[in-house]
Amino acid sequence: MTQQTDLPETMTVVAITEPGGPTVLKPEQRPVPLPGEGEILIRVKAAGVNRPDVHQRRGTYPPPPGASDLPGLEAAGEVAAVGSGVKRWRIGDQVTALTPGGGYAQYCLVHESNALPIPHGFTFTEAAALPETFFTVWHNVFERGGLKAGETLLVHGGSSGIGTTAIQLATAFGAKVIVTAGSPEKCEACLKLGAVRAINYRQEDFVLAVKEATGGAGADVILDMVGGDYVDRNYAAAAEDGRIVQIALLSGAKAEANFAKLMMKRLTHTGSTLRPRSVAFKARIAAELETRVWPLLASRKISPVMDMIFPLREAWRAHQRMEAGAHIGKIVLDVA
Amino acid sequence: MTQQTDLPETMTVVAITEPGGPTVLKPEQRPVPLPGEGEILIRVKAAGVNRPDVHQRRGTYPPPPGASDLPGLEAAGEVAAVGSGVKRWRIGDQVTALTPGGGYAQYCLVHESNALPIPHGFTFTEAAALPETFFTVWHNVFERGGLKAGETLLVHGGSSGIGTTAIQLATAFGAKVIVTAGSPEKCEACLKLGAVRAINYRQEDFVLAVKEATGGAGADVILDMVGGDYVDRNYAAAAEDGRIVQIALLSGAKAEANFAKLMMKRLTHTGSTLRPRSVAFKARIAAELETRVWPLLASRKISPVMDMIFPLREAWRAHQRMEAGAHIGKIVLDVA
Repeated sequence: MTQQTDLPETMTVVAITEPGGPTVLKPEQRPVPLPGEGEILIRVKAAGVNRPDVHQRRGTYPPPPGASDLPGLEAAGEVAAVGSGVKRWRIGDQVTALTPGGGYAQYCLVHESNALPIPHGFTFTEAAALPETFFTVWHNVFERGGLKAGETLLVHGGSSGIGTTAIQLATAFGAKVIVTAGSPEKCEACLKLGAVRAINYRQEDFVLAVKEATGGAGADVILDMVGGDYVDRNYAAAAEDGRIVQIALLSGAKAEANFAKLMMKRLTHTGSTLRPRSVAFKARIAAELETRVWPLLASRKISPVMDMIFPLREAWRAHQRMEAGAHIGKIVLDVA
Repeated sequence: MTQQTDLPETMTVVAITEPGGPTVLKPEQRPVPLPGEGEILIRVKAAGVNRPDVHQRRGTYPPPPGASDLPGLEAAGEVAAVGSGVKRWRIGDQVTALTPGGGYAQYCLVHESNALPIPHGFTFTEAAALPETFFTVWHNVFERGGLKAGETLLVHGGSSGIGTTAIQLATAFGAKVIVTAGSPEKCEACLKLGAVRAINYRQEDFVLAVKEATGGAGADVILDMVGGDYVDRNYAAAAEDGRIVQIALLSGAKAEANFAKLMMKRLTHTGSTLRPRSVAFKARIAAELETRVWPLLASRKISPVMDMIFPLREAWRAHQRMEAGAHIGKIVLDVA
């Protein structure tokens, strides 16, 4: 049986009114949704902003079937209602969740298994900055890429939300992290987070720099969101038996590569996107994170890097900032 | 201590006299080599011919450091001498072995761990046809590609030595096999070996044919020796979570591909070459094959497909036949 507190009938959301630039993001009133079986309704306090939101706004990354048309892939807040069959959460519990969409709103639905407790001592804005990057890095770097202690991880876009998370997580689990970033400030930020080497890609060739930093061996795992001509250069920068994990293709999907390098070095090139995965898949990652990573957050051994916080209604400014590319770490919406 | 029977001082070999066409392969006299620690000397009765021999002959695939300059990656015969520390084999034992090179000769050295007993009832020519393709298929299809029972394997070049081995092994372990081949006769041979569908790539687009044969799902594992424009087409023909294993690049190493397919379908593109791997690696594969596959050979559940047998001295004719591309199955040299 659904349990709920006194809920308003409508809520403020930020919707994509048409495909286009940041200003197509506009506040709207929508009915407050009710949780179905196994779902919880979160009274959102803060919502993370992610690159896929930008693609969705432009019309190039439509939401998967059944998902909310609203942007927002992560949200933190309090449980405001629980659907039938919900076991773990009660009204009033504080959670942060990977959502199927709909985070840019005062209320957001999510399957209970895709929510996690807020790490001890974390604010809602900090908590909202966790799910998308931590789920992504955990699955792609450790599971898909198989990064092990003592190995070298190369992270492109080291100062992004994904990058800053990857640096900290990989370092915490005993790997050496090399990053690429686009300015001295960004490189400096990455080094402070634990990277052993930060390559300013505007000034240095990352293939040569990675080879030099690894005594000629190359990187064991490469986390890449760039694509384009980086694909072939990743093959060159990878070590024997290296794994390259593609999580975005910001420089383009089609590219030429020399597959002799892939074959002769026995590389593994793979990739994934998080949003279309099943609730069960996300639940498994959530459980792994709660056991292996949440204690590191609670002890502040690692922390999300917070760039800027914007009010929900000004989500367009948050997108503007992300597209300008000057941010370091996470951009979050405050949903007071 | 090295043990040996009465060995001649010299032997007949077929050497690559200079880089070039088949006729650069010429008989020569060479000293008979003596086994070092852990090595056995095989009195060769038959030696397999493989595509890498052709590349080596052309000068585009030099032998790895320390290997014989003679072509020949597999040989079957009798143990003629054993080096110090050899535990398993005695003089007179009949073996078939993956060699580091040097198979085109009356005597050939190999580490004892890279030799296997000749399956019960097998002739030397049949036995010599086994190592290269069985080691290659076992590692790339089952280990690297992770093929499981019930899954679909797409094999390009289905009628080649590798292809005919892959069809039989994958079928024996419960997978469905689809092949591409270049003539109706080759397609027919593949179907007889157990392939559920043979695509004549000169007449049909293999991407459409694979989709059709799998109810739209695509192939779970693809074993590819073609490369070139097949890379992108393999990405299109692969199922979600599909694995593509590159074992050669006969159509070219550099190619353009759409990596959005790799990322969105969570494909894994990997590859390997067998020859430069360590003795220990090859020993591990040998042990797996002896346990899991040799019983299937002894019971004739699977058999090597024999194309033609040429005398050692006429190795150039064997190369000519391989390069003409009309063969089905294995080409072997008889070293009487």
